[in-house]
Amino acid sequence: MVQILDGKITATKILEGLKQKTSTLSKKPYLAVILANDDDSSKIYVNSKEKTSNSIGFKSCVYRFDKNITQGELIKLIHELNQNPDINGVLVQLPLYSHLDENQILNLIDPKKDVDGFNPINIGKLNSNDNPYAVCCTPKGIVNLLRAYNIELAGKHAVVVGRSNIVGKPLCSLLTNEDATVTLAHSKTKNLKAITKTADILISATGTTNLITSDMVKKGAVVVDVGIVRMPNGKIKGDVDFEKVKNIASFITPVPGGVGPMTIASLMENTFELYLKQNGI
Amino acid sequence: MVQILDGKITATKILEGLKQKTSTLSKKPYLAVILANDDDSSKIYVNSKEKTSNSIGFKSCVYRFDKNITQGELIKLIHELNQNPDINGVLVQLPLYSHLDENQILNLIDPKKDVDGFNPINIGKLNSNDNPYAVCCTPKGIVNLLRAYNIELAGKHAVVVGRSNIVGKPLCSLLTNEDATVTLAHSKTKNLKAITKTADILISATGTTNLITSDMVKKGAVVVDVGIVRMPNGKIKGDVDFEKVKNIASFITPVPGGVGPMTIASLMENTFELYLKQNGI
Repeated sequence: MVQILDGKITATKILEGLKQKTSTLSKKPYLAVILANDDDSSKIYVNSKEKTSNSIGFKSCVYRFDKNITQGELIKLIHELNQNPDINGVLVQLPLYSHLDENQILNLIDPKKDVDGFNPINIGKLNSNDNPYAVCCTPKGIVNLLRAYNIELAGKHAVVVGRSNIVGKPLCSLLTNEDATVTLAHSKTKNLKAITKTADILISATGTTNLITSDMVKKGAVVVDVGIVRMPNGKIKGDVDFEKVKNIASFITPVPGGVGPMTIASLMENTFELYLKQNGI
Repeated sequence: MVQILDGKITATKILEGLKQKTSTLSKKPYLAVILANDDDSSKIYVNSKEKTSNSIGFKSCVYRFDKNITQGELIKLIHELNQNPDINGVLVQLPLYSHLDENQILNLIDPKKDVDGFNPINIGKLNSNDNPYAVCCTPKGIVNLLRAYNIELAGKHAVVVGRSNIVGKPLCSLLTNEDATVTLAHSKTKNLKAITKTADILISATGTTNLITSDMVKKGAVVVDVGIVRMPNGKIKGDVDFEKVKNIASFITPVPGGVGPMTIASLMENTFELYLKQNGI
């Protein structure tokens, strides 16, 4: 019988813990979010981050820009936020308007305030298992979800499908640090099924609906679905053919209600941890 | 019939190309090397780097320290080398004396002079495929050796055994950037043979002699041996049981004469490339 990896319940517990700890602090953790695109999904994500942040007693502010924002103005804002001692975490919602240089902006965020963990210093430190200031939220959320269900990672073969810089690659680093044997597959992989079939833990993060079908999954595997695609009817679907794969997997995440809530919970954990470090706690 | 991946011949060609290009420059590429341990192998490596550097017309200097060197003195030297406009590449030979903090030292090297590519910024940029200033020498040498023999990487399944920060992990990043499907195996991997058997390209970098036996290799695989162990009789051995595996592989590196010379050639390429960037060429 498959067990659902419930990200909503797990995230709620994490957030309650943070709320409790925050209630004892006189100065509160403070998250700054920059939204410089007019994509509807990004607006929803940013609103959700702001709402969650406030619900657990953090301070937050969102800088919303129309498409007249220039690279120079954004750089100036990042410098101000880096220098502002009240701000603990700086998050730039991706993607940015296409005329802006994302990598340049991400590289300017002070690694000690880089709450998303996307600065190359944090990516490099994660890769070398050398104490990054923050670990990217989605990979961290996935590992926390697996841990919450006592799923062992050491010695397990984890297959990650999708090599984005914000999920697939840092997830491989994190899983390797957890002593898993890790395979990274992607759009250029030949015979994907032969690879996914060997996975004890299969994680798909491509945004291609129904990419992972039941014949691609080993009996008893743990299946984690990071895909989020909004269908024309408004429903959200993942990468995994949930209805069929759930008959083969031992554990599986739903979409929605799996990795999504864990990502936001990790963002709040990161904000809190950066707050502690910056205040020498 | 197996083909030998001859690192000596390939490296010699690369070095001759660099020598030719360097002869046309009025100001020469300049490599600074720091040796702060009394390990015999390290001394041999450093001498070889100095000799190669001089043989192709580069300038070089080696800072040799006895065990009284302090972390503070080393930090001061790194800062001086970072600021010296004549120096293009700074290399710290690892390991350092055990009383020194390696990570702190590596993190202080200016990423633009980080000829070994070990600074977290360069590790992070390599991981994100975002133009690192320099790519770690052994991984770069391996990919250059495979390229020299027209071995395709895109879509191939590469299995890397050994997760060191200086070879295994950056090699995985580089191979992923080359569109290979990459698996990273290590000491905690269960059933290593089942994993290595699936490799089109098998790269072992553990320093455990005879770890890779013929029953662990798929017929026709490309086998790259990064191991270097000096035996009591003075001979150097790799990770791979060469005599038996060569009957199964399509291509194989010898030890010595495989990856070793390529690593030094990559160091010289990196020094040259940093020189060009720093001089705006």
